[in-house]
Amino acid sequence: MSDSLCVSTIRCLSADMVDAANSGHPGMPLGMAPAAHVLFSRGHISFDASNPGYLNRDRFVLSNGHGCALLYSMLHLCGYNVTMEDLKKFRQLDSKTPGHPECFDTPGVEVTTGPLGQGIGNAVGIAAAAENLGARFKLASGKPLVDHYTYVFCGDGCLMEGVALEAISLAGHLGLGKLIILYDDNGITIDGSTKLSFTEDVRKRAEACGWHTSVVMNGDEDLDAIHNAIVEAKNVSGKPSLISLKTTIGYASPLAGQHKVHGAPLGKDNTKKLKKTLGFDEEKSFVVPEEVYAAYRKVAEAGKQRAAEWQAEVQRTLDANSDGLQDLRSILNPNWEALTKQVEAALPKWSTNDKPVATRKASERCLECIMPCLPQMVGGSADLTPSNLTFVPGAKDFQKESYDGRYFRFGVREHAMAAFANGVSAYGNNTLIPYVGTFLNFIGYALGSVRLSALSHHHVVYVATHDSIGLGEDGPTHQPIEIVAALRATPNMLMFRPADANETAGSYFQAVMVNQHYPSVLALSRQEVPILEGSSAGKVALGAYVLNTFGGAADAKPTVILAGTGTEVSLCVDAAKALASEGFVVRVVSMPSWELFERQSLEYRGSVFLAGVPVVACEALSTFGWSKYSHAQVGMVTFGASGPFKDVYKKFGITAENVAAKARRVVEVYKTTAPVLVHADL
Amino acid sequence: MSDSLCVSTIRCLSADMVDAANSGHPGMPLGMAPAAHVLFSRGHISFDASNPGYLNRDRFVLSNGHGCALLYSMLHLCGYNVTMEDLKKFRQLDSKTPGHPECFDTPGVEVTTGPLGQGIGNAVGIAAAAENLGARFKLASGKPLVDHYTYVFCGDGCLMEGVALEAISLAGHLGLGKLIILYDDNGITIDGSTKLSFTEDVRKRAEACGWHTSVVMNGDEDLDAIHNAIVEAKNVSGKPSLISLKTTIGYASPLAGQHKVHGAPLGKDNTKKLKKTLGFDEEKSFVVPEEVYAAYRKVAEAGKQRAAEWQAEVQRTLDANSDGLQDLRSILNPNWEALTKQVEAALPKWSTNDKPVATRKASERCLECIMPCLPQMVGGSADLTPSNLTFVPGAKDFQKESYDGRYFRFGVREHAMAAFANGVSAYGNNTLIPYVGTFLNFIGYALGSVRLSALSHHHVVYVATHDSIGLGEDGPTHQPIEIVAALRATPNMLMFRPADANETAGSYFQAVMVNQHYPSVLALSRQEVPILEGSSAGKVALGAYVLNTFGGAADAKPTVILAGTGTEVSLCVDAAKALASEGFVVRVVSMPSWELFERQSLEYRGSVFLAGVPVVACEALSTFGWSKYSHAQVGMVTFGASGPFKDVYKKFGITAENVAAKARRVVEVYKTTAPVLVHADL
Ligand SMILES: [Ca+2]
Ligand SMILES: [Ca+2]
Repeated sequence: MSDSLCVSTIRCLSADMVDAANSGHPGMPLGMAPAAHVLFSRGHISFDASNPGYLNRDRFVLSNGHGCALLYSMLHLCGYNVTMEDLKKFRQLDSKTPGHPECFDTPGVEVTTGPLGQGIGNAVGIAAAAENLGARFKLASGKPLVDHYTYVFCGDGCLMEGVALEAISLAGHLGLGKLIILYDDNGITIDGSTKLSFTEDVRKRAEACGWHTSVVMNGDEDLDAIHNAIVEAKNVSGKPSLISLKTTIGYASPLAGQHKVHGAPLGKDNTKKLKKTLGFDEEKSFVVPEEVYAAYRKVAEAGKQRAAEWQAEVQRTLDANSDGLQDLRSILNPNWEALTKQVEAALPKWSTNDKPVATRKASERCLECIMPCLPQMVGGSADLTPSNLTFVPGAKDFQKESYDGRYFRFGVREHAMAAFANGVSAYGNNTLIPYVGTFLNFIGYALGSVRLSALSHHHVVYVATHDSIGLGEDGPTHQPIEIVAALRATPNMLMFRPADANETAGSYFQAVMVNQHYPSVLALSRQEVPILEGSSAGKVALGAYVLNTFGGAADAKPTVILAGTGTEVSLCVDAAKALASEGFVVRVVSMPSWELFERQSLEYRGSVFLAGVPVVACEALSTFGWSKYSHAQVGMVTFGASGPFKDVYKKFGITAENVAAKARRVVEVYKTTAPVLVHADL
Repeated sequence: MSDSLCVSTIRCLSADMVDAANSGHPGMPLGMAPAAHVLFSRGHISFDASNPGYLNRDRFVLSNGHGCALLYSMLHLCGYNVTMEDLKKFRQLDSKTPGHPECFDTPGVEVTTGPLGQGIGNAVGIAAAAENLGARFKLASGKPLVDHYTYVFCGDGCLMEGVALEAISLAGHLGLGKLIILYDDNGITIDGSTKLSFTEDVRKRAEACGWHTSVVMNGDEDLDAIHNAIVEAKNVSGKPSLISLKTTIGYASPLAGQHKVHGAPLGKDNTKKLKKTLGFDEEKSFVVPEEVYAAYRKVAEAGKQRAAEWQAEVQRTLDANSDGLQDLRSILNPNWEALTKQVEAALPKWSTNDKPVATRKASERCLECIMPCLPQMVGGSADLTPSNLTFVPGAKDFQKESYDGRYFRFGVREHAMAAFANGVSAYGNNTLIPYVGTFLNFIGYALGSVRLSALSHHHVVYVATHDSIGLGEDGPTHQPIEIVAALRATPNMLMFRPADANETAGSYFQAVMVNQHYPSVLALSRQEVPILEGSSAGKVALGAYVLNTFGGAADAKPTVILAGTGTEVSLCVDAAKALASEGFVVRVVSMPSWELFERQSLEYRGSVFLAGVPVVACEALSTFGWSKYSHAQVGMVTFGASGPFKDVYKKFGITAENVAAKARRVVEVYKTTAPVLVHADL
């Protein structure tokens, strides 16, 4: 095989893609083609293109996702189902080759990248997931279940982003020795030279975080040096590695070394010159010499062979039928139907005779019941364990010395935690299911990753406690207002705000067992709430349901409907009782999840919110969005305040008295002719 | 003065506050009281308690804001308007001493902190603001206008957060020599020992970023060592400094060194023991010996004296009446009325004969016109200058060698950029006005700081380009969906999405000149939009207005209203023309800012959205929230897609045809009896 021909092929192919799209980023692929070729062709990355999900594959994460023409070129050469036709449709609608890599669109793409820094965070999660599974499960031979490497490409941009800096610190702490970053150190960002904004000593910084580092002085051409640096990095154990590759952005093109080659096509003339320089026919595009295909076929065959061997050993292990394989079986061949029943039965139940309980406390009990049923579950908190109540009794920390632990200590690194969780989720198809905790308000610190959980359908459960002004004294910097609106406006995201302990259990059931290709946020209270008459774990599935009717029979037509979520459902019940004593028939609707409600039939939705009956909503968060399901709102239109929580609720008028007063007003204004809230799509 | 008595007083006072509130964080104040005392009492921090806004004061930022009992104690001793009664109301509703420091609540609090890492980002902005003003403006004596230091207290938590890591990297790059961080290196986080999650070499990491560092081994007691380290740091120029103080969390209390002293009151018994250890009367609370008050009175007097001298020199400078003082006058004594007129006159105007222009391009023209009028304006981009179009011709970079430059190169550090901008805004009362650019979607990376812009009423202008699926090929990772809902749900935040170039100018006018105590986000398009007939810079003030009526006279009652924002207003116009040709009377409403619209009278709002007339909304973002102002929506309910922008719009049905089709349907369903959208609060 001619390495040089392969590298030139990759360069030209990537440039052709960007030119054909008349849009994209040719600079990075031209600079990093040698590193990609070395990684894939010299045995560093083992994969099975016919089975992209093969569990022990080496992982490749393109954190600088804008360079995806390079990734697609590699996937094509490696024999993934990414055809030359697909490459020609780069950045076209509904193609397999979108403008940034999306793991749900393209076989071989591990995680969705493009928003800078995310890939590094994902890769840390992937590497941790591998260590966890490897430490917990052994093959018959005694080898760990998985023992692959995780490689990352990144650029300067990724290394400036906070999410990556947090993740690098965490990875160093955890000593993830099989994580290797190849840093495209080309000295150029979008604005120009890195001298404008990025002059730190990147290697020293990584070393301060416990990383092994090295440098390749000629990343443009010196394939052996790249290879040797990778070999060296693989031989370092107990430390992640960062290899700095000195490269030239837009290498071999007339725009080499210039920032304008970062994000715009080379154009016809410059592409011709590139091809001439590389010894390719200037007039031809999308050319892969047969010799190059042949070389990569060999690579692919070797990977397929290794995958088959691993699969056979897994089968031997499972066939051994020895003790203690139950968890391994559950991980590799889960019987979701049985597991679902098991979890449903295990989840705690509360009766109205039980004492009031904070939903974060109910959450702790739920986790305690779920963890033994589901070996898939792993979790942690961003240094709020005693507040989030995410550490269940008997859990073990995941640390350098105890990779078999299922509890992550993320430190105060919310954004990296979410990116990490996305990586854990992307590790396999529910092979591991991460839950991660912080205060609801600090989901805002992690939103860059949280939105990617949703975009990529990662099954991540966000345990978001301290879910309103009800957290009290910590004040407005900690009291969420807008974040629930943001999450409800996020496609694919399930936002749960359970009214009491039973709904908390129902929310866990939905989040963990029923919606396994969706992320969920569970907004949980710091303060205690009573177990409500009529509340139901099962009915959480409906998203919203009639909790109870006051002042009339359950089937009586209500004078007014009070709709709430979370801790405010109790306020609605109190208001309803007061109104009932005045002769109103009051329906209380609990609405733990808008998203699940909106999946229900028109008929069901119309049976909850009845035509003509006025609705008052109560939620101690921004009222933004509630016009959809109510005619008047009791909620927040300002930031919160610091004080004991009951004082704070009172200050902002989030009280049963106020709900009742609004109810009287809407009834007076609308009588039985309130505008219909639920109707067929127009 | 007995230093030891002062430090013990501060410790007891802080512990008493937390105990009285039965809520709060005593651990940090007990550990960091010595550092606070040294900073304030040994001439490092100069301030004028009677004039907290005095421009050349040394700045003190408590990044670990949970330790605010310490800060409030210091403000009380220093003679700020924070009385003993105020200290006793710690964490009580509407007190001057909330659970985390809020700059709008308490004199002497520079920035709102608590969400970890923010204070570091703010302080970098403050230090940069000082260098900028100092480099641009000289006093008669030749000294810089301002030449103070910026001090920060932070803990482990702050140093784990991405926002701080980004800011530290940026500060090192910029060589901000007057920025000094005192790091409370107590080895404890909420979860327990830092060994659980934070084991990096903090000093080496800072040094890799170009910082000077030092360590004080006994931060609990060795006041001279703390003092000497500060003196040393002040003597280092061209590098920010990080002083690591080895301290004991909860020092001198029975819980010393334990993580449980971080965030819970000591309790009666332990507080007694603390007082006994420190030689205080166990039975008395909130005690400040007269000797301590006297010592701090001296400190305060010295500061007041220095402030008066500076003020006198400023006056001498201005009196000199020499040339080139116009900008200095505008900075120190702005005539906002005159400046407002000037900016209004300077802003560009477009006519319907002009070619279509992307609103990001219009934004560039606006900035070009504003910058010369307003010496206050400084700005930059998070490495998206050529896309955000934020660099106006003739601007100069703010760099280590050119602190007089008004353009910041933030690198790919959105979160730090926003925290930095908050610091710049907090520097003075519109002394500097920052505008900062990124893609609208990546406001999500910065949300932790953006929400604090709103909470603290910082006058920050976010230039958020690429504001919808209209950015095209970069695809769903870059296409905002939910972020506008999040911003609209954020109190105090002004969200503008101008329909064309003229509305862009109007949005700038509102954001920069009219709403000087509010942050704004300007959502701007990548793609071109025509200059619309009826669009108006002036009417942006109304938030929403009738752009035009089609198929009837301007005052004809419309059959249907089409309401849009940004680039989709053009689609509404096209739809309206089609509908008009079918005999409909169609009103098009442009709605650049919900927030400004909601400030208008009921009468005005009801004149825009008419009772009984159905409304179709069109916005290429999440439809979440639009039930408030429409009966049917054309918008996004999923994530976007990668492709040429026209294809993407078509894929998601965001087209004039679809708007027209929905309009026909709402008219058919509702006729003239559509539910009223605008009504008196219920
Ligand atoms: Ca670069
Ligand atoms: Ca600490």
